[in-house]
Amino acid sequence: MKKFINDPNKVVEESLEGFLKAHQDIVRKLPTSRVVVRKEAPIPGKVGLVTGGGSGHKPAFIGYVGEGLMDAVAVGEIFSSPSAQQVYEAIKAVDSGQGVLCLLGNFSGDIMNFDMAVEMAKDEGIKVDQVIVNDDVASAPLEEMEKRRGVAGEVIAWKLVGAKASQGAALEEVKKTAEKVIFNSRSMGVAHSPCTVPTSGEPTFTLGENEMEIGVGHHGEPGIRRMPIASADETARMLTEKVLDDLPFSAGDEVCVMINGLGATASGTLHCL
Amino acid sequence: MKKFINDPNKVVEESLEGFLKAHQDIVRKLPTSRVVVRKEAPIPGKVGLVTGGGSGHKPAFIGYVGEGLMDAVAVGEIFSSPSAQQVYEAIKAVDSGQGVLCLLGNFSGDIMNFDMAVEMAKDEGIKVDQVIVNDDVASAPLEEMEKRRGVAGEVIAWKLVGAKASQGAALEEVKKTAEKVIFNSRSMGVAHSPCTVPTSGEPTFTLGENEMEIGVGHHGEPGIRRMPIASADETARMLTEKVLDDLPFSAGDEVCVMINGLGATASGTLHCL
Repeated sequence: MKKFINDPNKVVEESLEGFLKAHQDIVRKLPTSRVVVRKEAPIPGKVGLVTGGGSGHKPAFIGYVGEGLMDAVAVGEIFSSPSAQQVYEAIKAVDSGQGVLCLLGNFSGDIMNFDMAVEMAKDEGIKVDQVIVNDDVASAPLEEMEKRRGVAGEVIAWKLVGAKASQGAALEEVKKTAEKVIFNSRSMGVAHSPCTVPTSGEPTFTLGENEMEIGVGHHGEPGIRRMPIASADETARMLTEKVLDDLPFSAGDEVCVMINGLGATASGTLHCL
Repeated sequence: MKKFINDPNKVVEESLEGFLKAHQDIVRKLPTSRVVVRKEAPIPGKVGLVTGGGSGHKPAFIGYVGEGLMDAVAVGEIFSSPSAQQVYEAIKAVDSGQGVLCLLGNFSGDIMNFDMAVEMAKDEGIKVDQVIVNDDVASAPLEEMEKRRGVAGEVIAWKLVGAKASQGAALEEVKKTAEKVIFNSRSMGVAHSPCTVPTSGEPTFTLGENEMEIGVGHHGEPGIRRMPIASADETARMLTEKVLDDLPFSAGDEVCVMINGLGATASGTLHCL
């Protein structure tokens, strides 16, 4: 896999450096930790919002720091959780006294580090809570929803929870919004090809020349079905049927559809119907 | 090359259909021709702006129709010019009586069809002019600037000329802005891999496993140097040196930098320094 990089071990550091230069009107980095925060944080009267996770998911996570979105992102290595210390510093940096809500994907490393960070912040008297995003229907059956990965649904959660917090809602209300959004979000992935982590140089999995895999996770986690490449229509049908069957959903409901590229397909779109 | 498509012969039609559904608050299609226009066009008091070209360059061209941008885009087949009739209908659809400026890339098929369309519109008494974008420094030396391809510079032209027209400037002024923008825009491409036109199924060129090609055009036109993959820093240096040497440029000048993906690399960015 060909990439525009310098040193595979410096990809995260250097891409963050470029990002900060390009968007210094919106974000800054904490001096002591690899955490990107809104320039104005902490914002008086507003609940602080923290997310974070491994790098390698552009525009997630750092692209979602800003007005009406997250206040801070703790930036991990490629596909690897940020440390508890990073998350703790993120929480401290965005607390204006109204408390902080952490939103994170359902991945064991992230959960472990966010849990620790939340405890550290609580010990200092910060009001802090967290909600875990688990939208990926392919990763576990409905009755084991709590095992599902957080994937594209995180973007929806950042946007809606960000909007709620920016209206001045209290921590409890912001948390309720997060839970409602997550309960109503579903996603499913499909892959034509694997990704390659720069430091390993090896694809995360292999697929035949005419194969696709339905239900793949965004780190290359195995999906639920490997099959010959289907048409765009058939592929869309397979993904949406599984998503719709899983939802508390009926005709006439308003829905918001997001199509994203899982890192490889060039265009994504977000649309409300 | 794996793609999410149905029928290779219907890719343009179907992707346009999806685009129109998703953005019906901003754009509509002319009933008689494959032309995307701003929903409100023609806009009273404003010079109409028309562009167009082959498909396969998302988000160009159709993604640049809207407020402060283009009023109409004539949509060709993949890598193939729209017809003169399409461009003519685009011109007619956006003329509010203030005249129309066509902005197009320097490609022979586009020039032929736009030339014919402009004549057809003039015959009907529409005030219409056109400006050709030629920003790609790799495609011809400075003394033959008029032979250069229009690539990423078109995006800059659409944005700045769109802004000028939206301020209510007259056709002559809008044209002057276009010429100034183009005279000051330069770009250069690099490729790690070719593209594959859906109907042919074959890559437009081939590159070795560890090779890159500097100066490639966005249809896969040959570049100026094929070499082993260089680091991101070296690659950026090679591209920017050639661009800067070519410009009427001196220290302290304000510049606007756009990095785009030429269709393959996932993220692009536009930034003013």
